[in-house]
Amino acid sequence: MSPKGLLITFEGIDGSGKTTQASRLAAAIGPGRAILTKEPGGTPVGKTLRSMLLDPDLKIDPKAELLLFLADRAQHVQTLIRPHLEDGSIVIVDRFIDATVAYQGFGLGHPLELIASIHQRILEGLLPDRTFLFDIDPQNARDRISRRGDPKTSVENRSEEFFQRVRNGYLQTAEDHPGRFRVIDALLPQDEIAGIILADLQSLEAGMGQERSLKGKMS
Amino acid sequence: MSPKGLLITFEGIDGSGKTTQASRLAAAIGPGRAILTKEPGGTPVGKTLRSMLLDPDLKIDPKAELLLFLADRAQHVQTLIRPHLEDGSIVIVDRFIDATVAYQGFGLGHPLELIASIHQRILEGLLPDRTFLFDIDPQNARDRISRRGDPKTSVENRSEEFFQRVRNGYLQTAEDHPGRFRVIDALLPQDEIAGIILADLQSLEAGMGQERSLKGKMS
Repeated sequence: MSPKGLLITFEGIDGSGKTTQASRLAAAIGPGRAILTKEPGGTPVGKTLRSMLLDPDLKIDPKAELLLFLADRAQHVQTLIRPHLEDGSIVIVDRFIDATVAYQGFGLGHPLELIASIHQRILEGLLPDRTFLFDIDPQNARDRISRRGDPKTSVENRSEEFFQRVRNGYLQTAEDHPGRFRVIDALLPQDEIAGIILADLQSLEAGMGQERSLKGKMS
Repeated sequence: MSPKGLLITFEGIDGSGKTTQASRLAAAIGPGRAILTKEPGGTPVGKTLRSMLLDPDLKIDPKAELLLFLADRAQHVQTLIRPHLEDGSIVIVDRFIDATVAYQGFGLGHPLELIASIHQRILEGLLPDRTFLFDIDPQNARDRISRRGDPKTSVENRSEEFFQRVRNGYLQTAEDHPGRFRVIDALLPQDEIAGIILADLQSLEAGMGQERSLKGKMS
């Protein structure tokens, strides 16, 4: 059997700090073993799709938008995530399946069963080994974002009620999959969060009895 | 109730002559009432998706490809087909839902139930009023194509066995929906095919008892 890596996903609404922590984790593990990637946009196909999804002039229909996010995921899983996992890498993904459930499902009202059917087809049994959910009140997240001024996808230009539904969707998904999820208070100091994540992954690897431990790499 | 148009789709493998006949029909009805469009590529979003689907260097994964075709359809239905039908136009589409079933389902083996679920979500009850299937033996179709030299989507660079499955998929779909489909022998002379199509649509409109008849327009 080929060495099997780990799939770690970072989830949360915009402004939750997940991207910063995903980068910190990748740096802590080191470029030799960690692959840091994101959705949408982790592949050449995905980069084109991301720029379409970010372009308000295209007026992408919500159903088309959902399918573009999922097409991006299919390409990402098949051409990047799966091959790196086969190589034994630790693949860190900034937004993955739970983002679609939270944003497009809970937030925009697309049927959860349809999203699940398409995910089942795309993933063929692959699931994150660990998902860190950065939980934050949408008002606090908005305050953080307004200090940055990043380009946002059309889905991120929404009302506070929308983000409340997304947050609740994320929390419900975490509740439904307690073994996979760790919910992190996004308002904790960054160093503390980084420590929680490293400790959790060390115990995850220890629990999985992997020969190549993270411990040396991350201490 | 707002005047309701007609949705007419042209289906068949590449080289079946459907595109020529779709254009002839649009010209016969006239630009005042006919809208001729195609998939993939009938919208600005679709044009970008079409160029991605035609680019072999992108190495699009089959699952991503399926979802891109369906995203194109969602955008096309919502932003072009539905509004024109509401205006009372006759919308003529060169490849639509049955192409996905035949090519991606029967041809490439994607689950038919998944395609049906996504179509159900995209269409919300909308179906073609008439589908003309141009049936042709793949070998004959290949001979015709080799005389042209068009750019092909990656799905069109396939073996004869593949096109045989697609043809059979089309024929089975037509058998399953006899009220909607008319199967046309693609080897008939073009004028004869054009006549069959016009006569069929006149009787379709007569049967639907529409006030605005095609008859005057198309005689």
